[in-house]
Amino acid sequence: MKSYHLVPCRGLAGLTVREREEPEPGRRQVVVRIRANAIGYRDLMVLAGDYPLPIRPGVVPGCEGAGEVVAVGADVTRVRPGDRVAATVFPRWLDGPFRRDDAAQLGTMLDGVLTEYAVLDEDGVVPIPEHLSFEEAAAFPLAAVTAWNALSGSGALRPGATVLTLGSGGVSLFALQFAKLAGARVIVTTSGAEKARRLRDLGADEVIDYRADPVWWPLVRDLTGDEGADCVVDATGPLEQSLRSVAVRGEVALVGYWLSGAEGARPVEPGLLFGSGAVVRPVATGSRAHFRELNRAVAAHRLRPVLDRVFPFTQVRDAFEYCEAGGGFGKVIISHAS
Amino acid sequence: MKSYHLVPCRGLAGLTVREREEPEPGRRQVVVRIRANAIGYRDLMVLAGDYPLPIRPGVVPGCEGAGEVVAVGADVTRVRPGDRVAATVFPRWLDGPFRRDDAAQLGTMLDGVLTEYAVLDEDGVVPIPEHLSFEEAAAFPLAAVTAWNALSGSGALRPGATVLTLGSGGVSLFALQFAKLAGARVIVTTSGAEKARRLRDLGADEVIDYRADPVWWPLVRDLTGDEGADCVVDATGPLEQSLRSVAVRGEVALVGYWLSGAEGARPVEPGLLFGSGAVVRPVATGSRAHFRELNRAVAAHRLRPVLDRVFPFTQVRDAFEYCEAGGGFGKVIISHAS
Amino acid sequence: MKSYHLVPCRGLAGLTVREREEPEPGRRQVVVRIRANAIGYRDLMVLAGDYPLPIRPGVVPGCEGAGEVVAVGADVTRVRPGDRVAATVFPRWLDGPFRRDDAAQLGTMLDGVLTEYAVLDEDGVVPIPEHLSFEEAAAFPLAAVTAWNALSGSGALRPGATVLTLGSGGVSLFALQFAKLAGARVIVTTSGAEKARRLRDLGADEVIDYRADPVWWPLVRDLTGDEGADCVVDATGPLEQSLRSVAVRGEVALVGYWLSGAEGARPVEPGLLFGSGAVVRPVATGSRAHFRELNRAVAAHRLRPVLDRVFPFTQVRDAFEYCEAGGGFGKVIISHAS
Amino acid sequence: MKSYHLVPCRGLAGLTVREREEPEPGRRQVVVRIRANAIGYRDLMVLAGDYPLPIRPGVVPGCEGAGEVVAVGADVTRVRPGDRVAATVFPRWLDGPFRRDDAAQLGTMLDGVLTEYAVLDEDGVVPIPEHLSFEEAAAFPLAAVTAWNALSGSGALRPGATVLTLGSGGVSLFALQFAKLAGARVIVTTSGAEKARRLRDLGADEVIDYRADPVWWPLVRDLTGDEGADCVVDATGPLEQSLRSVAVRGEVALVGYWLSGAEGARPVEPGLLFGSGAVVRPVATGSRAHFRELNRAVAAHRLRPVLDRVFPFTQVRDAFEYCEAGGGFGKVIISHAS
Repeated sequence: MKSYHLVPCRGLAGLTVREREEPEPGRRQVVVRIRANAIGYRDLMVLAGDYPLPIRPGVVPGCEGAGEVVAVGADVTRVRPGDRVAATVFPRWLDGPFRRDDAAQLGTMLDGVLTEYAVLDEDGVVPIPEHLSFEEAAAFPLAAVTAWNALSGSGALRPGATVLTLGSGGVSLFALQFAKLAGARVIVTTSGAEKARRLRDLGADEVIDYRADPVWWPLVRDLTGDEGADCVVDATGPLEQSLRSVAVRGEVALVGYWLSGAEGARPVEPGLLFGSGAVVRPVATGSRAHFRELNRAVAAHRLRPVLDRVFPFTQVRDAFEYCEAGGGFGKVIISHAS
Repeated sequence: MKSYHLVPCRGLAGLTVREREEPEPGRRQVVVRIRANAIGYRDLMVLAGDYPLPIRPGVVPGCEGAGEVVAVGADVTRVRPGDRVAATVFPRWLDGPFRRDDAAQLGTMLDGVLTEYAVLDEDGVVPIPEHLSFEEAAAFPLAAVTAWNALSGSGALRPGATVLTLGSGGVSLFALQFAKLAGARVIVTTSGAEKARRLRDLGADEVIDYRADPVWWPLVRDLTGDEGADCVVDATGPLEQSLRSVAVRGEVALVGYWLSGAEGARPVEPGLLFGSGAVVRPVATGSRAHFRELNRAVAAHRLRPVLDRVFPFTQVRDAFEYCEAGGGFGKVIISHAS
Repeated sequence: MKSYHLVPCRGLAGLTVREREEPEPGRRQVVVRIRANAIGYRDLMVLAGDYPLPIRPGVVPGCEGAGEVVAVGADVTRVRPGDRVAATVFPRWLDGPFRRDDAAQLGTMLDGVLTEYAVLDEDGVVPIPEHLSFEEAAAFPLAAVTAWNALSGSGALRPGATVLTLGSGGVSLFALQFAKLAGARVIVTTSGAEKARRLRDLGADEVIDYRADPVWWPLVRDLTGDEGADCVVDATGPLEQSLRSVAVRGEVALVGYWLSGAEGARPVEPGLLFGSGAVVRPVATGSRAHFRELNRAVAAHRLRPVLDRVFPFTQVRDAFEYCEAGGGFGKVIISHAS
Repeated sequence: MKSYHLVPCRGLAGLTVREREEPEPGRRQVVVRIRANAIGYRDLMVLAGDYPLPIRPGVVPGCEGAGEVVAVGADVTRVRPGDRVAATVFPRWLDGPFRRDDAAQLGTMLDGVLTEYAVLDEDGVVPIPEHLSFEEAAAFPLAAVTAWNALSGSGALRPGATVLTLGSGGVSLFALQFAKLAGARVIVTTSGAEKARRLRDLGADEVIDYRADPVWWPLVRDLTGDEGADCVVDATGPLEQSLRSVAVRGEVALVGYWLSGAEGARPVEPGLLFGSGAVVRPVATGSRAHFRELNRAVAAHRLRPVLDRVFPFTQVRDAFEYCEAGGGFGKVIISHAS
């Protein structure tokens, strides 16, 4: 079986394919035949050596994958061979708030899922909603879990709430979709008429073009009768504008965009943090419990993710290059379909 | 101006109309020209002397009313003359959990709203969503606020959650409507094909006929893959079946049905409470904050309440008799329209 | 090495000792040389076949134990050989609310800790505070975790709160001790002057003798200026009196006493549940996170548990008989000390 | 009767004394004979025109006062003449989170309490714990309520938690005292041996001298086994160091120090906010509910505030000058005692 492996800090040049034996599951582990992956900026950062966590040389990259359980080890009770599952990015973060001793994640120190067969903890996989293909299911582990977590901290997942999402990256798109399921009103920022149209098709109530209005927070206040948004899912910054857009008693869910040295990552005054009257909460993916809870909503509403392009497993490099070029809309998917 | 007044414990015989001067608002009070009321079991209990709180002789009954502000007293900042408002049942319960020193309610010790002009605290009225008529707005203060509070304690107001409502009383209907706005799946119990049809029209995903299946909790477990409902809004009992229907980690929101000596009010074993793994939480209406939060959702979704019949203000007695006969579907409304 | 094993439903007659090989740890498992156990009613119920969960024939009983890690399996990262640890009763309940798929517990379907060497999940052990002996540490896994969980749901673990504990069983004693650490005022019910004296020594602010005052709830109301207790840790019942003793907005934490068919387990009216204005929450032990959090408090305050009697490992039968006779004060401990 | 009044933006020069009639209470108002006040930076900012809210010309300044109810208006139910009460800074913020329409505060738009007789809402006063003198009681409304609110958002008010307070201002001192009541471990930063000694006397477990160690966050991490503090009560900044000192899953409670243009108010990188893993929450005083809850704790533990100096009502100007000079330890009090 084939796996991708990486030499840290060398970008795509550090990515190689190796042939290995099909793995055996240990106690409480399962072997999953991976059928689809998603890739994105996080993986590019890992490849480039820009990710703020240690990378094990030779590690299998990729933290988003879905497939079929083909073997289970001793004491496995949660899944059975034949089950369709997705991997969780943090296999040890099961429930409750994040803890440092649950910080191991796929594709950095732990082998990830850009492989044909992955050995995963039984706690590190969740069942896939029936209506989803493997390609669709692969879109969820990182962006959807982050979006659900981001919306869950405040009262944002409630009818009548107002949610503001920044940009049309993966987290923002899922946040928009989830907030609409919950009966919230959603304001999004984006650039260009085509993206605006697609966001409206996904349910966006209001679209702000940040190219036309680079200082867009006054528009958010206008659209909310000066109340501000109950929850800002801030995946791009600038945080300053999020703080001026959020309601007193609201929350800014801070997704880790600055990791990429984004232009949006300008410092903010403590006085602005104070004056917003809102909580700022860092959101780094989410737990197995978040994933299961969102899957329940996805299944009930037969929600489908936005996919951008699908590449075959043999063309992972092309997929990364496509990703790097930017400008897409939705998740970039790797399909293992023969 | 005319008001109804009551002699406690005499039922409808204790209800009289009196002519009074139009009232003046005191400091932080407003005078509301009442345009519509809703009435229900709670009022019948108050009239009959079955309500568990002291009733002031001669009090104006009625805790649900909507109208127009016609005068404001000193230091009023929240509303202005001309504002369309609904009264809150507990004028002093503004936010946070219920406290005993905020227990004064309309129509028992405080004068209620079965009157042409009511003097109310400015904190005791909330604005009415624009799309609602006064008749519709009068349907909300008791049942809708209770339903919202009932759903708010747990994670029930979330996409993918399962809510079970018992019967088709006012609280149950609003709970059904709110839960659907929130993307939840809703199971309802009722009797008869006609009510079942109307509940489905309101969005019920599953309807259980409790006449056909008086022991209905196994059906709830079947419909939920044996997980049980995340939230049971129990407005009729039997509590035992609610406890067998609720999910571990879920909540039974207990609305005060037993006050009427309902058949459903059978004692339950502590072992059943324990074994359910779920929280039981009493819900007695809700705060001004609950009311405002639900109004936001109602406005955003242009939700309309279910009205049963509308009686003129001169026929309040007929309305109460209609109410007492039971069997309706939706709120019984009193209109002051000339 | 020696282990106790049980034939279900035969009481103490079903308890036998067997000699086995020292076990090897599997992946993510550890072998703990057990140095002390605690036993109690739960074990007696398991032996008698009165426990409401299936018991695996031949299972090693006992859910409370502490010892030293002597071997670790593959992929173990949380502990090392030589670490002093206590076992958690539910090895898979790590954080967040209880879930049914984490329900496996020591000593029923999973082998327990009445053994010289136990194989445990690395997630199923927690470090022991330094100041505790093994005998003391063995007192915590069931009663202390339950008490902490019981106090954690409401605002009971706060200075100025009032906590009511019923009786002087293990959960009640820990609840008393923890609530005092938190600056709460604690009222306890018990019988007899000697127990009253010992409870006062542990910090009880008020002691009610339920023999002298079998209807004690009015005393609780008197002692709280008619407000009631913010949290009732109800480990014995009668629930009715707890409901009459609890504050509006408070919580009755229901510990599973009725399992033993206790006299206290009388049915309660839904109207009483409603009228209390308080939440009733079942508490079945707690998670690894609860255990770690309480250990932090125990370590910071060098708190010591109340031990009743210590029996050697060879006299587990005598210990159970002592337990069954009742009337003790504190935990019954088994010491493996040679 | 005499009151202070202020001309905005003129500092102490704008402060004058006027003689007025004793006021009459309106509906739901009380007249309080003020017996003591506290003053502090907030008042200096109001006088100087540096406060970020509009100031009504001629307003009575002062937001901290305690006294005796001497008259009650119509419909007052919460207090009676003779009651000893303290004023709440935000008379309309009763419970739940802060709302913009409850933002009116004493001494800016509403008349404050630097007066002999104040007219206050009955909801805007809370009873004083019996063991406190008026001078002591006057120390609580601003700093103690802020400290309690700051500690209440996270799990900081719990035995075993670690709280970090910055400096020895009023909020920090109360936070230290409250956290100790709750069984938490408290680390404080301060300057100089004398303050360190006094902080230790108040219960501080660890004192860091920020003059000796201007980069003190590594010391906090050392003292917490690299976990960080569960709650940082940040009343002085620099926020950057707070973010490096706080635990993952913890909270930085941001008190409004930057309002004074403090050196500590340097901008922070979004990446640092994200990387901390902790929530940042602005804390602007607190609600009536916070005040009542803390009073309960204060009464139960007979806690006394730290008073710095007491000035007579005729020497308010001297008191403000003393305040402005800085360097004190504890609250500056104005006594009306004749």
